[in-house]
Amino acid sequence: MPEETNQIEMPLGLAGLIVDLQPVFLDLVHESESFSSNCRFLIESLNLFQIPLFLTEQVPEKLGGTSSEFLSLAPMAPVFKKDTFSALGASGLRDALSDDGIEHLLLAGVETSVCVYLTALEALSADLEVTILTDCVTCRRPTDGEWVLRKLAAAGCHLLPVESIFYGILGGATHPHFRAFTKLVNNRTVS
Amino acid sequence: MPEETNQIEMPLGLAGLIVDLQPVFLDLVHESESFSSNCRFLIESLNLFQIPLFLTEQVPEKLGGTSSEFLSLAPMAPVFKKDTFSALGASGLRDALSDDGIEHLLLAGVETSVCVYLTALEALSADLEVTILTDCVTCRRPTDGEWVLRKLAAAGCHLLPVESIFYGILGGATHPHFRAFTKLVNNRTVS
Amino acid sequence: MPEETNQIEMPLGLAGLIVDLQPVFLDLVHESESFSSNCRFLIESLNLFQIPLFLTEQVPEKLGGTSSEFLSLAPMAPVFKKDTFSALGASGLRDALSDDGIEHLLLAGVETSVCVYLTALEALSADLEVTILTDCVTCRRPTDGEWVLRKLAAAGCHLLPVESIFYGILGGATHPHFRAFTKLVNNRTVS
Amino acid sequence: MPEETNQIEMPLGLAGLIVDLQPVFLDLVHESESFSSNCRFLIESLNLFQIPLFLTEQVPEKLGGTSSEFLSLAPMAPVFKKDTFSALGASGLRDALSDDGIEHLLLAGVETSVCVYLTALEALSADLEVTILTDCVTCRRPTDGEWVLRKLAAAGCHLLPVESIFYGILGGATHPHFRAFTKLVNNRTVS
Repeated sequence: MPEETNQIEMPLGLAGLIVDLQPVFLDLVHESESFSSNCRFLIESLNLFQIPLFLTEQVPEKLGGTSSEFLSLAPMAPVFKKDTFSALGASGLRDALSDDGIEHLLLAGVETSVCVYLTALEALSADLEVTILTDCVTCRRPTDGEWVLRKLAAAGCHLLPVESIFYGILGGATHPHFRAFTKLVNNRTVS
Repeated sequence: MPEETNQIEMPLGLAGLIVDLQPVFLDLVHESESFSSNCRFLIESLNLFQIPLFLTEQVPEKLGGTSSEFLSLAPMAPVFKKDTFSALGASGLRDALSDDGIEHLLLAGVETSVCVYLTALEALSADLEVTILTDCVTCRRPTDGEWVLRKLAAAGCHLLPVESIFYGILGGATHPHFRAFTKLVNNRTVS
Repeated sequence: MPEETNQIEMPLGLAGLIVDLQPVFLDLVHESESFSSNCRFLIESLNLFQIPLFLTEQVPEKLGGTSSEFLSLAPMAPVFKKDTFSALGASGLRDALSDDGIEHLLLAGVETSVCVYLTALEALSADLEVTILTDCVTCRRPTDGEWVLRKLAAAGCHLLPVESIFYGILGGATHPHFRAFTKLVNNRTVS
Repeated sequence: MPEETNQIEMPLGLAGLIVDLQPVFLDLVHESESFSSNCRFLIESLNLFQIPLFLTEQVPEKLGGTSSEFLSLAPMAPVFKKDTFSALGASGLRDALSDDGIEHLLLAGVETSVCVYLTALEALSADLEVTILTDCVTCRRPTDGEWVLRKLAAAGCHLLPVESIFYGILGGATHPHFRAFTKLVNNRTVS
């Protein structure tokens, strides 16, 4: 783990929110493997920059919990059960975001056209800034996802791929996390 | 049929409007089979939520009526004959919408570039809110449809896939229609 | 030729402007055959509705004139020679548009990324309304065309396929030109 | 070299800025060959119109310098070393742009989603006008690039292919550089 964290200018109030990484959904979505790889990269990057991560699960007692490949990367991330499609309907999540001073969500997960869509709308209504990570969301029908993302852009969300966010936080090659982040990027490219 | 309707928060003033599901057009359009499947799903979903549905037919005495696969799903839906391309030119339809207090149309049918386009423009002019269901419209030339949809988005229509609308109405898994809707979704995925 | 013209509500101040239908360009562009078919359909439709058509040619004394397949469909259309890329730089064209009271151009031709682009920008600057007919423009590199069309939409042009325009003018099946236009559409679909 | 420069109306304050044409990046990006061909065409066009060109290199002492195929076309272009992802973080570049009275950047290079993106944002913040040359930028994941370009368009950048820019500067066939530019275009088309 890096020791130089206190020297780093961290984006204030930023958090990752990944919704419903449950096998019951992952088995159905478009390009599931590359999506999962992108989400693992996202989690590792959040870890590196010590940006808080929040996970949600849709009715896990019936549908099963988050896939272990993600949980093992984020053992400390709080997991919020929900029965609403919007993640912000999960009991305790809005309070947790508020307690942590979160003002800007990096939003990822499944499905673009259902839970991601409704989470983004509710987050905008709650005056949160929302960035949809375009390569870390997916759904069963890719055309559906494209239209939903256009709608969310028009509604005021930022839409950017995950690397653009973290390279923007790094700013340059002298950032203390640059080497570690480059290693994550290279691993991602190989796989 | 569900009995718990009165417990459900229904969107006020919402109606489905599907234009010209006539074989003479369906035989010509792009991806006709998946389009028809999506429209059947739309009709079944409107039925489930008891959202009124209006159908139109273009000069049916010459071109033939609505395909029976759709009519059989919506035997009670009023069918309006028209000779204008905009569905709102059908005799009686605007009065019917007004009588039902309809303020927001879920618009579907064929062709995106002709009757859907002109219906959407006239509906906007009539101060109706318009959501084009992106997977429930089609036309002969898919590229034509893409440009028309971009134009309608710029003109003020919402563009969303049909599932996003109904999951938004459901809100979550505790909605009394959740199970029935999930069954519709699963049937759709299988076919 | 239809005799019922005086009964028809014609759009005021509308004209077609097709730039540079010269073999020297047509031989190079993307999907040249379907583009040419779409332009023939456009010319036949303008003829039917007696909407004036203006043609331009880029330095025809060196590059050759308009392809005869188009000229033969529009023998009365004035052809303006130009050495500017914007059609509005052609000597006499702006005066001709002004004399005819033209306020809205249906713009077509080649190349999207050069002469169509620069014509559209100059027409907007001259306070003309501009509709780019998306299936009646093309260029050598289709990706170039896509970005240029997005830019022109942002700049204030309408972007619509040719059929949407003429079905909008027709309005419905009782228009006296409906049968003749339907025949043009059907011929187009067959080829 | 043309001698008639003083007769030409040159766009004031325009410069090309191409970031990080280093083999270490070029080997990884999508459609690297056509991208490189487009950048060579860009450099030759900038030379023809005597528009200043600025190059940057990301940590060249570690990653290697600009590919010789580009340097040989622009032997006089200043090359700025940088360790920030935004080119405007390169020591001396902002002063150089300011000294030359540059107000509008033609931006190209790699990667769309990292250095091009962050350069464009910083340039907008610095009140520079920014045109992204859509065929002269690329990245490893083409879908990432598409979303970033949409974001940059929404942020206020112009997005246009390289030919549209230079044909716009030419204006017509009587421009003294028309023949020379046509030759560049034809060479490009052949390769």
